[in-house]
Amino acid sequence: MIERYSTKEMNALWSEENKFRTWLEVELAVCKVWNERGVIPSEAYDEICTKADFNIERINEIEEQVQHDVIAFVSAVAEKVGANGRYIHLGLTSSDVIDTASSLSLKRSLAVVDEKVLHLMSSVKKRAEEFKYAPCAGRTHGIHGEPTTFGLKLLNWYHQLQRDRERIALAAEQINYGKISGAVGTYAHCDPDLEKRVCETLGLRPALVSTQILQRDRHANILNTLALLGSALDRFATEIRHLQRTEVMEVLEPFGARQKGSSAMPHKRNPIICERISGMSRLLRGYALTGMENINLWHERDISHSSTERVVWPDAFHAITYMLMKMKNVVENMRVDTSKMKENLELTRGLVYSQRILLELVEHFGMLREEAYAIVQENAMRCWQEKTPFYDLLLSDRRVSALISEEQLRSFFAPEYYCRWVEDVFNRFSED
Amino acid sequence: MIERYSTKEMNALWSEENKFRTWLEVELAVCKVWNERGVIPSEAYDEICTKADFNIERINEIEEQVQHDVIAFVSAVAEKVGANGRYIHLGLTSSDVIDTASSLSLKRSLAVVDEKVLHLMSSVKKRAEEFKYAPCAGRTHGIHGEPTTFGLKLLNWYHQLQRDRERIALAAEQINYGKISGAVGTYAHCDPDLEKRVCETLGLRPALVSTQILQRDRHANILNTLALLGSALDRFATEIRHLQRTEVMEVLEPFGARQKGSSAMPHKRNPIICERISGMSRLLRGYALTGMENINLWHERDISHSSTERVVWPDAFHAITYMLMKMKNVVENMRVDTSKMKENLELTRGLVYSQRILLELVEHFGMLREEAYAIVQENAMRCWQEKTPFYDLLLSDRRVSALISEEQLRSFFAPEYYCRWVEDVFNRFSED
Amino acid sequence: MIERYSTKEMNALWSEENKFRTWLEVELAVCKVWNERGVIPSEAYDEICTKADFNIERINEIEEQVQHDVIAFVSAVAEKVGANGRYIHLGLTSSDVIDTASSLSLKRSLAVVDEKVLHLMSSVKKRAEEFKYAPCAGRTHGIHGEPTTFGLKLLNWYHQLQRDRERIALAAEQINYGKISGAVGTYAHCDPDLEKRVCETLGLRPALVSTQILQRDRHANILNTLALLGSALDRFATEIRHLQRTEVMEVLEPFGARQKGSSAMPHKRNPIICERISGMSRLLRGYALTGMENINLWHERDISHSSTERVVWPDAFHAITYMLMKMKNVVENMRVDTSKMKENLELTRGLVYSQRILLELVEHFGMLREEAYAIVQENAMRCWQEKTPFYDLLLSDRRVSALISEEQLRSFFAPEYYCRWVEDVFNRFSED
Amino acid sequence: MIERYSTKEMNALWSEENKFRTWLEVELAVCKVWNERGVIPSEAYDEICTKADFNIERINEIEEQVQHDVIAFVSAVAEKVGANGRYIHLGLTSSDVIDTASSLSLKRSLAVVDEKVLHLMSSVKKRAEEFKYAPCAGRTHGIHGEPTTFGLKLLNWYHQLQRDRERIALAAEQINYGKISGAVGTYAHCDPDLEKRVCETLGLRPALVSTQILQRDRHANILNTLALLGSALDRFATEIRHLQRTEVMEVLEPFGARQKGSSAMPHKRNPIICERISGMSRLLRGYALTGMENINLWHERDISHSSTERVVWPDAFHAITYMLMKMKNVVENMRVDTSKMKENLELTRGLVYSQRILLELVEHFGMLREEAYAIVQENAMRCWQEKTPFYDLLLSDRRVSALISEEQLRSFFAPEYYCRWVEDVFNRFSED
Repeated sequence: MIERYSTKEMNALWSEENKFRTWLEVELAVCKVWNERGVIPSEAYDEICTKADFNIERINEIEEQVQHDVIAFVSAVAEKVGANGRYIHLGLTSSDVIDTASSLSLKRSLAVVDEKVLHLMSSVKKRAEEFKYAPCAGRTHGIHGEPTTFGLKLLNWYHQLQRDRERIALAAEQINYGKISGAVGTYAHCDPDLEKRVCETLGLRPALVSTQILQRDRHANILNTLALLGSALDRFATEIRHLQRTEVMEVLEPFGARQKGSSAMPHKRNPIICERISGMSRLLRGYALTGMENINLWHERDISHSSTERVVWPDAFHAITYMLMKMKNVVENMRVDTSKMKENLELTRGLVYSQRILLELVEHFGMLREEAYAIVQENAMRCWQEKTPFYDLLLSDRRVSALISEEQLRSFFAPEYYCRWVEDVFNRFSED
Repeated sequence: MIERYSTKEMNALWSEENKFRTWLEVELAVCKVWNERGVIPSEAYDEICTKADFNIERINEIEEQVQHDVIAFVSAVAEKVGANGRYIHLGLTSSDVIDTASSLSLKRSLAVVDEKVLHLMSSVKKRAEEFKYAPCAGRTHGIHGEPTTFGLKLLNWYHQLQRDRERIALAAEQINYGKISGAVGTYAHCDPDLEKRVCETLGLRPALVSTQILQRDRHANILNTLALLGSALDRFATEIRHLQRTEVMEVLEPFGARQKGSSAMPHKRNPIICERISGMSRLLRGYALTGMENINLWHERDISHSSTERVVWPDAFHAITYMLMKMKNVVENMRVDTSKMKENLELTRGLVYSQRILLELVEHFGMLREEAYAIVQENAMRCWQEKTPFYDLLLSDRRVSALISEEQLRSFFAPEYYCRWVEDVFNRFSED
Repeated sequence: MIERYSTKEMNALWSEENKFRTWLEVELAVCKVWNERGVIPSEAYDEICTKADFNIERINEIEEQVQHDVIAFVSAVAEKVGANGRYIHLGLTSSDVIDTASSLSLKRSLAVVDEKVLHLMSSVKKRAEEFKYAPCAGRTHGIHGEPTTFGLKLLNWYHQLQRDRERIALAAEQINYGKISGAVGTYAHCDPDLEKRVCETLGLRPALVSTQILQRDRHANILNTLALLGSALDRFATEIRHLQRTEVMEVLEPFGARQKGSSAMPHKRNPIICERISGMSRLLRGYALTGMENINLWHERDISHSSTERVVWPDAFHAITYMLMKMKNVVENMRVDTSKMKENLELTRGLVYSQRILLELVEHFGMLREEAYAIVQENAMRCWQEKTPFYDLLLSDRRVSALISEEQLRSFFAPEYYCRWVEDVFNRFSED
Repeated sequence: MIERYSTKEMNALWSEENKFRTWLEVELAVCKVWNERGVIPSEAYDEICTKADFNIERINEIEEQVQHDVIAFVSAVAEKVGANGRYIHLGLTSSDVIDTASSLSLKRSLAVVDEKVLHLMSSVKKRAEEFKYAPCAGRTHGIHGEPTTFGLKLLNWYHQLQRDRERIALAAEQINYGKISGAVGTYAHCDPDLEKRVCETLGLRPALVSTQILQRDRHANILNTLALLGSALDRFATEIRHLQRTEVMEVLEPFGARQKGSSAMPHKRNPIICERISGMSRLLRGYALTGMENINLWHERDISHSSTERVVWPDAFHAITYMLMKMKNVVENMRVDTSKMKENLELTRGLVYSQRILLELVEHFGMLREEAYAIVQENAMRCWQEKTPFYDLLLSDRRVSALISEEQLRSFFAPEYYCRWVEDVFNRFSED
């Protein structure tokens, strides 16, 4: 991933340095088991633990010659250890190391993502509570429907992220596996117990069956999961982009104090962070596709997946981590203009309450549905065409004023009515 | 989906007729709850239960006028019921019906798919047991590596399908929700308890929070899950396509007795079913993409997802069901030529055993690794270049024959060695 | 494609009936050439021309047995012709017929699409002219930037469609090829001249080299082209969806007189056609992916592409045709509220003109840039925070009023300034 | 793109340094036109030309503050120039620079790609000529059909690449445009003539109409074009991967002399370059999707595309360039084993000639088609089941030997027959 969107959390897992660091972790876990079995003498094992290290330039130098990254890596490490370096990689096939290490990196990356989601959820929840009863227009098709509250909007995000966490949990569970089963998965020159012990050491479980590699549905599901999460962030970002429009101006994403471009055109606060989040979700959907095409590998493995994984795994994790952190900042620091929300609610001159008036007339004032409908419809049309407040029209309609007092009627034009279940909905998340 | 790839199982869930049938199921569940609450008198409710029905032509006729499918549907049903038809759809928003019904259809479709996966797994397992010890070449990069068994290949498929089932289970869990929360999710003209009771009646759970609709990550995850499953089938089908090649001919997919094209060219048994399965997996990956783009809907909903869902939901479920059934037939009836497998294992003239020879020399005959490597390498190269059996060359190499008897050496050229952990691996699945 | 989104234009090309009709066209063209060469006697040829026909049920019946669609088709046609039916399909491989016929269908479909694009362009141009000088807010990031005109927006659409036509032209050119080159492309049992003459007869060109089939990049490019076109329509539809928002209300997509749902909530005119167009563009992007995966076929062909093409070719052409026709209707009949556009332009209280004021002060009133900037910035900030018209503030700022008369200043707050190159831009398209 | 797959050609166009270099190119072209018009005095212009330069660290430093990359860039350059730096960026909007510069970079990148395609084509053509008459099995569905030649296979690749070049040409033509039309495309503070002259200076054409940016279908088409080209390379690479299988071994991709892994297992020459090419084509298909989603930008632009373009444009161009160079190396240096091709052609014991025998009997030996078919079929079946050469069986079949001499019959079992149009096909490309 380009530096601009790289995160230190993911650099710690996906840098070249850390890739090799994780390979070494696997190699050392194998040495540990061989030592327990007495194959590697304790002195040798101790020396390995102390000295095993590497230098990327040296690895590259060797790879230049042998054209094989794992051999180059093992040789470079062995050089550092000296004679006892010969015990390293004993009984292993390259993919035993790479795939087991990849599982570690992916698992850890998912843990980071999950933690970032939790952080974001916490911010979302806090602001949802803050605006629990802040009425705003509920919009369907971009058109005002009925009032809702800004808190409910945010709570909906919170709940979507919960589902993302469930998907992350499954993806993490399915990648929580290592494999030390040899060149084609038969344990030809190693044994299942070795695999079991090594995986235990690494905090993984042994794959129940594998070929040279772990099958790629496990990995594809991770990318799909990130793409779904990215698409959630796309939805949230798009909501803010809509609400920040000049014509709406209900929410403003945070804006740096020294950020340029605003001085002579102060209205020009552009939701560029949210736009960036929206954009980057497109990257993730593209990577998901690449991951799914990697599933169909030939026989006991072909290596076509490898080049793409070197690119899209780090890219996807950098992107989603970056997006989650940016979104958290947006949620925490966005400026919410509740009075503008109320103002916008009045844009239809009371028509957003028409459905309620209709029901009141029928349910509490004994009017026949057909009659009530005719009255509401007639006045709604006038309201719309003549740009006169719906309330005024109804009040001056004898059929209505004969039944309903001014005060009563006024009370029907209130967003509070639409908030009467908000508490109940929030309570469903009270224990989170 | 075109008729050719349609399945009766999915027609039963996705035909126009059945779509409306499911809508009716939701409407009647709502009536039931209103009746329990005394809002719909029991007589009226009984009449509704008895008479509620519809006629598609009539619905279309009304829709032509009102340009709204749910209104058309409700009107058509109400007509059938008569005066008491006015109780139908009480307090509901169209999407309450559509989205809750969609959850039912998707959930049921996933159950069908899951069952088909189970059936396929059962077939795969059976044949895996049958060929548990049938040696064949393990191939990486398309090149022979070491021996494996055909049973292990199949067991690997079985395990991948287990993971697909885990993903299906999560997708099914996340869609197991209904929503009766009104136009923007505030229960403005209904109430949470109604939603709860209706969902219970339908075997669903109420969404903890919703807008006009259920959020589309739930649905996108289903399509992703099907695409992953389709990609698994693509992998299995591709394996068979490889093994059926003229040069390999280890496996033949079933071939109809009267199937044409074979008589004058009997070698021309084409793996067309597997090719079709491979191809159709591409449809599913495309549909997954469409589903992910549906997540980012505006505010409390925009309806852009609707047109695509009318197309890709049934298409995806028809395709995967068709593919699963075809694959099951292939697995059950494919002809496996174990003698050809053995024959192919000999194609490298024993080189697939070179790794073992090397290890034997070092581990059991006290040779230094460097020396053993040199000997194996030298003879392997000659074997390859001179097309002479590796065994013969080693036998005539004094450095080897001085240490190893003819009989012993011969014993090293045996696929059985690579099968010694097969039992263990199979045992991991013994309780399935 | 489901009936709802099917078009008669595409049914005429992609129905089962018409698929066979096109196959027959190819078979008859081959017979014609054989007749010219004297291989098919003229009497026989005449009889073939007269009698050659088919019945789909009969074809299906035969296919049920032979499991091969072309053989079934040829047999069914031959039955209709009688003894001379034996001349049909002479020297051909199935794919000679299918692929050549597919080229015809795809070419014709592209011609229909191109025509629909032209029609849409014509409507767009007309309305662009109509609103050539209708000022409206130019928005970047959803925020008002500077004035533009609604005509310019539409002209931009027009130009994008021109580029779509260029891409359609190339896609059409690359599919304008037939192939009669036999089972693996070697003309084993036919000859290049036959191919050439048959293609000429059909208005195609012979592929310079082929395998059993035409290579699938030709076809994938078509689906990509449709996806790009669909994405253009998505952009246009999204523009309207934005402009129809309750807060904006500058444009309304057409609304059926009898369309329901509007009476009691007249403000609830939802841009459902545009939403549908947006949604369907997601289908096309998904199909494009499927098409690209079809390129990598094995050797002289594998048949994995076939199943997907049966589905996505008609689906894609139905979808795009439907979308084009709907968009044309929208463009022709959308209600454009130019006074609301002007009203919205005032939302920033004149700040959209700040850039101009700045330049005027510098360029025509000799102010130093730094000073001018400071003045504009200061007043712009007050305008924004105090919600006072920018004009009023400037007028009461002595530094400004000392230089600029009231009248002059007023003249700077005019959208006309931003229209002074509109004529030039329109003139670039004057000859279209 | 990660270093491993980066190319110096694309670094020269897409590095951070070169991105700014291209921006500067645009800024200087604008200064040139202002100088021609007398707005920038010649001395100032000369000084700008001499001193205009930048330092990335300084740009980053400024961007850190202003949060705007173009402003940071312009400031940094102006600093280098001194007082006359104030003339830089006169009348421009940021996107005028970025989008015009992007067109330059994309156009130049496409030119590099096109050149690499040409180079690859030249290598493919050379080897096609070399193996023009090298018979090999033509395979459909992976099964031997009829003989073809290896040269024809390669010529087919050549032709596909020609079509890729046509698509590249169109994509390049459509991106050959700049825009200097201001904040929303109205030339508010510049003018069409400026745009025209600047574009001319840069070798571009002025966009006929634009918003703040050039519309993204132009750019999406580039990514689609690269994805199609990558899919072509995927097809070629997959062909070699198939032909390098242990069971086929007709072609070997080049193998480094010192490449490890081969010594003790010399048969294990893995087609890793081709696998890598196959894999990387999946990246390109993913990027294409991202590009298509970028088309639907809001109003006069939203900036959601920007983040993705920073990533996928360089990534896509690096990937395709890398793939083209690798493929060229593979084509030039692959080892083609024509004797193994002939040997494999015999795998069906002559059945690949069955179709010809049938036709010969009917056309040249006066046999009725039905009788000929029965004879061929009967013997073909025996050949297949009894593993006896088809030729031997026919020779010992009295119905055949009565008509055809041994010598004649033998002559029918020859791949040359299938090569008789090869010259014609090659001649179609003689002038390339």
